[in-house]
Amino acid sequence: MILTVTLNTALDLTYRVPALVPHGSHRVTEVDERPGGKGLNVARVLGALGHEAVVTGLAGGPNGETLRDRLAGLPVRDALVPVAGNTRRTLAVVDAATGDTTQFNEPGPTVTPEEWAAFLTTYESLLREAEAVALCGSLPPGIHVGAYAELVRRARAAGVPALLDTSGEPLRRGIAARPDLVKPNADELAQLTGSREPLRATHAARRRGARTVVSSLGPEGILAATPEGIWQATPPGKVLGNPTGAGDSAVAGLLSGLVDALPWPDRLVRAAALATATVLAPTAGDFDRASYEDLLPRITVTEHAPAA
Amino acid sequence: MILTVTLNTALDLTYRVPALVPHGSHRVTEVDERPGGKGLNVARVLGALGHEAVVTGLAGGPNGETLRDRLAGLPVRDALVPVAGNTRRTLAVVDAATGDTTQFNEPGPTVTPEEWAAFLTTYESLLREAEAVALCGSLPPGIHVGAYAELVRRARAAGVPALLDTSGEPLRRGIAARPDLVKPNADELAQLTGSREPLRATHAARRRGARTVVSSLGPEGILAATPEGIWQATPPGKVLGNPTGAGDSAVAGLLSGLVDALPWPDRLVRAAALATATVLAPTAGDFDRASYEDLLPRITVTEHAPAA
Repeated sequence: MILTVTLNTALDLTYRVPALVPHGSHRVTEVDERPGGKGLNVARVLGALGHEAVVTGLAGGPNGETLRDRLAGLPVRDALVPVAGNTRRTLAVVDAATGDTTQFNEPGPTVTPEEWAAFLTTYESLLREAEAVALCGSLPPGIHVGAYAELVRRARAAGVPALLDTSGEPLRRGIAARPDLVKPNADELAQLTGSREPLRATHAARRRGARTVVSSLGPEGILAATPEGIWQATPPGKVLGNPTGAGDSAVAGLLSGLVDALPWPDRLVRAAALATATVLAPTAGDFDRASYEDLLPRITVTEHAPAA
Repeated sequence: MILTVTLNTALDLTYRVPALVPHGSHRVTEVDERPGGKGLNVARVLGALGHEAVVTGLAGGPNGETLRDRLAGLPVRDALVPVAGNTRRTLAVVDAATGDTTQFNEPGPTVTPEEWAAFLTTYESLLREAEAVALCGSLPPGIHVGAYAELVRRARAAGVPALLDTSGEPLRRGIAARPDLVKPNADELAQLTGSREPLRATHAARRRGARTVVSSLGPEGILAATPEGIWQATPPGKVLGNPTGAGDSAVAGLLSGLVDALPWPDRLVRAAALATATVLAPTAGDFDRASYEDLLPRITVTEHAPAA
């Protein structure tokens, strides 16, 4: 099975309003509520692809209960560890007139040392069954900034390939623990390496400890610097849609390709096709299966010369 | 006891953000969550004043559970009727830089005919113990627009004075069932009567069926047209603060004065002092007790000549 870790799970709310007016009063015309957090999104896509996906991390309070109720209807196994605090909400307010989204993210509950210790026990036990693990998203208050580094080390000790998808200091610390794969977006990569030039920044990130760095280039696809070579996968032409969740779908594609032991170019094709099919899906975070099948043969992969 | 009815209860969320940026992404720095809906707010103030307050209405789903958990800590009795749907949320986003609030109101769950029938049974039984009843706020989807008219008629049949605080068509229908008291604000009154001149509009609202009309004039206090005379209660000078909940506190003051059998001028003093002390309170919807005690002797009541 493939394990995904979401320490700061979320109940993702979407409000549709006729038009966003700052300091105004809005009648919400549509409310959507779904289990969220990057690792949950990754697992949902893995489940849809037919993989056995297990989600762990932390959830608690009334929002955590709602999240787990909703999770029960999805093709993923719930191995979340309970916490006393209330799982955070995220809110996306969609302006129906313009399609623009305004985002609000709650900080999440403060996690106690005992809850973190209970999580580590669960994590260790799940690693024994895992073919790969994805460590995803922000850290809730109370969890030390080196938490991902610790989870990467434990995965390496268990012989399980670890993918790290986070940002800021947790990424900086985590990458030093030598994960198999990190997947920053352009902003995270620039923040980590100080460079906005994708190839240079990707190499710089590898030198910090990651075996492979896959960076998302938005509509230009994804770039992978691996021990076997450097490849870029590019979708055919521009697509219009909602990019929410495209990065999580790319992570699912990379993990799926890893456990299926595909060569790197094929893994990147799968990741790029899933990310693009997510942008095209009518519901944020889902992928459109017909678009995915249609895109697979139409992703272009080019090989770059190795770094000097 | 005093009964308050809230058919569309709400879990009231407040998000504090450093600054509201339309189409931006916001880290919420503070989250507040409290049981809400006008009738709940009225009952909370009544409880704080030492009255026995009972809240009924409809609540359900995870939000309804959270609401009832929070209600358990307040000096009010919970007689809410369960529904299958999820109680709505309201969200106030407070911009810390300017203090301005942007409001989002979910529509509420769709109520079935069976749930409405179950509510009516509870309502009838609670009316037998009630000294007064307040019917407050919007109607959730599924409840017919004449619902308040029906509740007013049943209260009259039970000999219980009924106060109606709603707007739009439910107010128009409800007032025709001859409640003892309606308490529209200036906008609601204008919408009902077509007049923005407070005294004229208040009289016009009385002619529609209400025995007494108390209209809030914002910082200029409140105006009451009663069978015994017409009075205006005015607070001493302008106050700065958050007007959220001031109307609900005024309703609590009117009910409190009614069951204490105070003459009209004293009821208005109580209502105006509570409303003003609510504007002054640091937390939206609470009233500041010291300000309330201080304001009581400083509210001015003037009598108007009867209508021609």
